[in-house]
Amino acid sequence: MSQAAASRVQADLERLLPLLDARLTVAFQQGEAERLGEAMRYSLEAGGKRVRPVLCLLAAEAVGGQIESALPGALALEYIHTYSLIHDDLPAMDDDDLRRGRPTNHKVFGEGHAILAGDGLLTEAFRVLADGPGEPARRLEALSLLAEAAGWRGMVGGQALDLEGEARAKTHRLTKRDGPKGEAQEGPSEGETLAHYDFDHLQLIHRLKTGALLRASLEIGAVLGGATPADRQALRATGEALGLAFQIQDDILDATATDADLGKRAGKDAGRGKITYPSLLGLDGARKALEEATETALCQLASLPNRTSLEAWARYLAQRAN
Amino acid sequence: MSQAAASRVQADLERLLPLLDARLTVAFQQGEAERLGEAMRYSLEAGGKRVRPVLCLLAAEAVGGQIESALPGALALEYIHTYSLIHDDLPAMDDDDLRRGRPTNHKVFGEGHAILAGDGLLTEAFRVLADGPGEPARRLEALSLLAEAAGWRGMVGGQALDLEGEARAKTHRLTKRDGPKGEAQEGPSEGETLAHYDFDHLQLIHRLKTGALLRASLEIGAVLGGATPADRQALRATGEALGLAFQIQDDILDATATDADLGKRAGKDAGRGKITYPSLLGLDGARKALEEATETALCQLASLPNRTSLEAWARYLAQRAN
Repeated sequence: MSQAAASRVQADLERLLPLLDARLTVAFQQGEAERLGEAMRYSLEAGGKRVRPVLCLLAAEAVGGQIESALPGALALEYIHTYSLIHDDLPAMDDDDLRRGRPTNHKVFGEGHAILAGDGLLTEAFRVLADGPGEPARRLEALSLLAEAAGWRGMVGGQALDLEGEARAKTHRLTKRDGPKGEAQEGPSEGETLAHYDFDHLQLIHRLKTGALLRASLEIGAVLGGATPADRQALRATGEALGLAFQIQDDILDATATDADLGKRAGKDAGRGKITYPSLLGLDGARKALEEATETALCQLASLPNRTSLEAWARYLAQRAN
Repeated sequence: MSQAAASRVQADLERLLPLLDARLTVAFQQGEAERLGEAMRYSLEAGGKRVRPVLCLLAAEAVGGQIESALPGALALEYIHTYSLIHDDLPAMDDDDLRRGRPTNHKVFGEGHAILAGDGLLTEAFRVLADGPGEPARRLEALSLLAEAAGWRGMVGGQALDLEGEARAKTHRLTKRDGPKGEAQEGPSEGETLAHYDFDHLQLIHRLKTGALLRASLEIGAVLGGATPADRQALRATGEALGLAFQIQDDILDATATDADLGKRAGKDAGRGKITYPSLLGLDGARKALEEATETALCQLASLPNRTSLEAWARYLAQRAN
């Protein structure tokens, strides 16, 4: 990443994060259910990169719109993303104890409150968009995009497929371990186990689980910023490519980084026999796929007038260390 | 309940349930995440009384609006209600095995899918309203009402407070059982334990957990039906009273009916030392409170031109057997 791009990302963060942070937990301060409010704020305040809301705001700017008009969309995206992490970390799902370097929500507040904190954040995402400023038709359009991306045809569906894949992989490992000796040799090898979930299936899960919301981040910003149909389409395609790049980089980091780098458990994909880009393509192959996806994103941006920030972010996301 | 009122309720059900049933699961038929779609349809198809969507449609009619314009609101309300039951039944929450006479969602599909099925239904509620027909400003208003009623200042907040109350009651019972002998006598009696959660707190939990969505059902129908401000206010107040009546009757049924009557475990409130209207006011006192709440609802309806159905439903809900 060039020095200019790095400075641009830094400048965007300094400009946009305070705007987001000032608004992110306001809705969860005053309410009868104090402990639940605390649980929601805990996960929102854990920080993270705020990639989705920042991309949403930058997309609005890229089409000549105002930051303020896209802010409800940015907040909604972060609420959805945060709720999805809380629910993903639950014992019945990925069963994680650590997230962004801190104990996961259910470890601090208990499973019941973690489920409800997720439900509350998901619901608030739609409230902030419904109550936000701006033209009603645009807000409804943004709401529809968000619900489609976050729902069972998007993120939630991807999580279900991922869970089913892990359950199958686990059953298979148990069968191999528990069966009589001869069976292990007759059964499929490790490589064949992975081949159960072919490359198309891996891409489908990623497109739904991670890609849908990232793609929507840019398109929601475009809609709230008043984009022309052509600009909106370009940002949608950019989001598609960035979503893919983001997931490949996630997989690479899980395979190569340390717990301390990530603020969560590293190497857990391999530990679960989970299909990843490195496991299918090798590390070099995965890095090449990441480069290609990033190039696609940059190509799609080429027609936009105010594209400098999004270009810098596309490069930054491909090189991030956590 | 008069014969005329009973016939009216029956006629409304015959007219409205087929409309709802024809639309309720359409959104969950075609998708990549087939098993998740199945889980969502399982709980939607379990039936139930469809009280919230029917009240929404009747409220739209009561203010002279069209059924079709309120249908997205009705579907959204049933999605939210159904998701809340799935999540409430989870082991980390009420831990129920039976709902509407069938195994609960997580018993059939596993906890992970049950959590995701709830998330998917909650998300779809907002999508169906965002994509529905009708004036954008009205749909946004309905969306905002729904999110407020379902969120952490409404239903989800009530569930959190309820959970906290149960946890405290459980801790207290454990302390009494496990402590040295002398402690049990020094500690508070059963009656005093109940007094920990005073009447105001019981009402607060019910107002949030059950009341908020029932109240919103009528107001959302009013908004989508194009109500005048006065009619909308009357329906909001009707919903407030009906929500209270509904909860009192729920408590009475839990204390008096059988499992077979309810299609779920009866007597579970008392088994958990949970505060209920009968436990605080006695059965007769609870029945009196139910009557009063129903009368309040009927008074509020008096100014509406097309009120016959809602009046019949107010009487029906107070006398329902499950």
